[in-house]
Amino acid sequence: MGADHIERDAALADASGLSGRVPALVRPADAAQAAAVVAWCYERDVAMVPVGGRSGYSGGIVPAEADGGAPRDTVAIALDRLDRVRSFEPLLWRMEAEAGVITATIARRARENGLLFPPDPGAAEQSQLGGNLATNAGGPHAFKYGVTGRWVTGIEVVLAPGELVTFGGAVRKDVAGYDLRSLLIGSEGTLGLITAAWLRFVPAPGASLPVAAAYPSVREGCDAIDAVLGSGVVPAAVEYLDARCIAAAPPPFLHGAVGASLLVVCEAESEDDRAALLEAMGEDAVAAPANEVWRWREGVSIAVRAALGEKLSEDIAVPVDRLAEAIEGTVEIGARHALEGCSWGHAGDGNLHSSFLLEPGDAAMRERADAAARDLFAMARDLGGTASGEHGIGLLKAGQLSAQWAPAAVEAQRAIKRALDPKGLFNPGKKEP
Amino acid sequence: MGADHIERDAALADASGLSGRVPALVRPADAAQAAAVVAWCYERDVAMVPVGGRSGYSGGIVPAEADGGAPRDTVAIALDRLDRVRSFEPLLWRMEAEAGVITATIARRARENGLLFPPDPGAAEQSQLGGNLATNAGGPHAFKYGVTGRWVTGIEVVLAPGELVTFGGAVRKDVAGYDLRSLLIGSEGTLGLITAAWLRFVPAPGASLPVAAAYPSVREGCDAIDAVLGSGVVPAAVEYLDARCIAAAPPPFLHGAVGASLLVVCEAESEDDRAALLEAMGEDAVAAPANEVWRWREGVSIAVRAALGEKLSEDIAVPVDRLAEAIEGTVEIGARHALEGCSWGHAGDGNLHSSFLLEPGDAAMRERADAAARDLFAMARDLGGTASGEHGIGLLKAGQLSAQWAPAAVEAQRAIKRALDPKGLFNPGKKEP
Repeated sequence: MGADHIERDAALADASGLSGRVPALVRPADAAQAAAVVAWCYERDVAMVPVGGRSGYSGGIVPAEADGGAPRDTVAIALDRLDRVRSFEPLLWRMEAEAGVITATIARRARENGLLFPPDPGAAEQSQLGGNLATNAGGPHAFKYGVTGRWVTGIEVVLAPGELVTFGGAVRKDVAGYDLRSLLIGSEGTLGLITAAWLRFVPAPGASLPVAAAYPSVREGCDAIDAVLGSGVVPAAVEYLDARCIAAAPPPFLHGAVGASLLVVCEAESEDDRAALLEAMGEDAVAAPANEVWRWREGVSIAVRAALGEKLSEDIAVPVDRLAEAIEGTVEIGARHALEGCSWGHAGDGNLHSSFLLEPGDAAMRERADAAARDLFAMARDLGGTASGEHGIGLLKAGQLSAQWAPAAVEAQRAIKRALDPKGLFNPGKKEP
Repeated sequence: MGADHIERDAALADASGLSGRVPALVRPADAAQAAAVVAWCYERDVAMVPVGGRSGYSGGIVPAEADGGAPRDTVAIALDRLDRVRSFEPLLWRMEAEAGVITATIARRARENGLLFPPDPGAAEQSQLGGNLATNAGGPHAFKYGVTGRWVTGIEVVLAPGELVTFGGAVRKDVAGYDLRSLLIGSEGTLGLITAAWLRFVPAPGASLPVAAAYPSVREGCDAIDAVLGSGVVPAAVEYLDARCIAAAPPPFLHGAVGASLLVVCEAESEDDRAALLEAMGEDAVAAPANEVWRWREGVSIAVRAALGEKLSEDIAVPVDRLAEAIEGTVEIGARHALEGCSWGHAGDGNLHSSFLLEPGDAAMRERADAAARDLFAMARDLGGTASGEHGIGLLKAGQLSAQWAPAAVEAQRAIKRALDPKGLFNPGKKEP
């Protein structure tokens, strides 16, 4: 690896607001070089932080301090040069892609060939496959299609102390070994370094036919979501915005939504299904143009941030029948901390982007938001849910799992970490229970 | 637990042909009793074998001998009394069911409420949820819908040394911890004892519309499968039978199939999709009645066995573009060992039930079949596939993983086994790399 692919004293930050520096950031050219870097680090007790598109929301790429607050010997490993699509066979619905390939590239290649790569986390133009795998990223269409891991039949990964191996491959079913593929996916780089994956696709659905409706109360909106689930249709997506988010990001396809308490947007994939959704969602439901809906939806997070200039957003998830409580609870928790709390998100999956609006640079407000976030995690647990539905634990939510899982379950996670990373060098401090 | 729920010197056998005995088989009444049994065993270094519906194909419930051939102190834990559906909320598409619930019961409860529980391994009336989870069971509809694990949002499991914990729950998305749910599912009872699961469903598809066609050569049949994949349709299932299997189980809905080299049966879920499949599969393709197709399909394994009276069946899987080679290879491997080799299975997933026909009680023939099976696993590996697509490793295929995975990958599996089962008491000898 030439010196032009090693950056000294490199800054690292993602979309979480956290940032840090590492003594060196290296950019291996391929999986073999990545394995060599891991071997070098593992031999010398040097910690490793994997870096993808830097669009994560949990500080997963931000170096953690060692116990006692001292900086560790840390190398960041950026995988942006592992950007090859190694193979793409559209007629067989599959692709082998390296970890540095941009998410949007995969989606576009699929689309150009009549296929769908369903995972659609935000920042598709920035995020990389490796980051999507590290967090097991979701998105609106996870409701029907599942999260990233569902579309992966194999991974190539560097395990400690620097061994490049594969779990699975192009074969679609495999129960010969433990499901280490699923274990590594979503492990936030703490068990090994994923360098490539075998992906699978499906033929693109015939149509994208959104339906939108606004409701005068959260309960009525959630009743409509229940009616959608009872309609016999499997919507591709079931999204929502609460009142504050509607005000921040008024939907251009439903002007009457402003002032409502809940906006619900579903997506059908056939005319029949759209008709069923229109009926389930009530007499004020309207068909909306797909391009307009998804362009607007992509901008919601930014619009909510823009309301006061900054925000703290979490990604709790609850069973769908507890959604109304979680939406109302977010507002109440905000009020308790003298903040505007609001939420939008993936209603069908019970996945809320619960947020607290902040003024930039107001440290006291930020402190109150951090306290509010802790209340939010507690609420999610009380409702039978989780502190993270799709962003991961990263650095930001360290410690939340211990409140959510029984001690023996947490110990099982720790035992696996020790088993696969005995020196604790893979992304230390991340996904800490 | 009363004495009426403890059986001394109990015989254990499944559909693999393997059998054995254990000093005691216990039948706990609930998860708490199951945890107490595990704690009792773990304290006393007693091995545990989990027992479900006894319909497995890999000897997963048959006790293994200790190294040196001595019997171990072993307790079999049958979960048939854990047969409660703890909750079922059809409008929310979900159920919490105990491990002893019969697979068909879950499917029927779903169906009666307009829902689909997609996993459809054979022996639905006999197999239990726990066994489906232990093997991550598949079936014909896994092509569109995925295997059992895809429909599980949480598990309740007894971990060493006897701790009852849950991973996940009713919440549909959760990345707060490592994906221990997926790790436990398919681990064949070697990492813990699953006592219950949260399942999810989807609204039942509108229709089951099979299309069948027979082809004069394996290659032409596989070309038709490629055409199906290229048709833009996502079939619910893509099944096949080779010539010998057609002869053993002639399809009542396609009399002309006898004498053909490959029968392909796909399932559409709408009229439009059926029309597209009929076109893709060629001019001789016919629409077939769903009840007739699936009743016949369920009997294929028994009919193939009946050809000579006995058979050895494996469940290798290969990338779908290698299917023709694997189908032809199965016949060739049989011939090399002076056996009739044949196969049928889940074409879309590249999952073959490659079989060798046997005469009952012919030990020499059985020995040749065992040798043929080893060749079969080697072929699957050479084609980029796996020794097991859906039955698991069990006792029957012990050692196959080491030939399939790199040493460092195998060591990762062993490290996880040691981490979660330090005494090696959970179903010893099973899923051995």
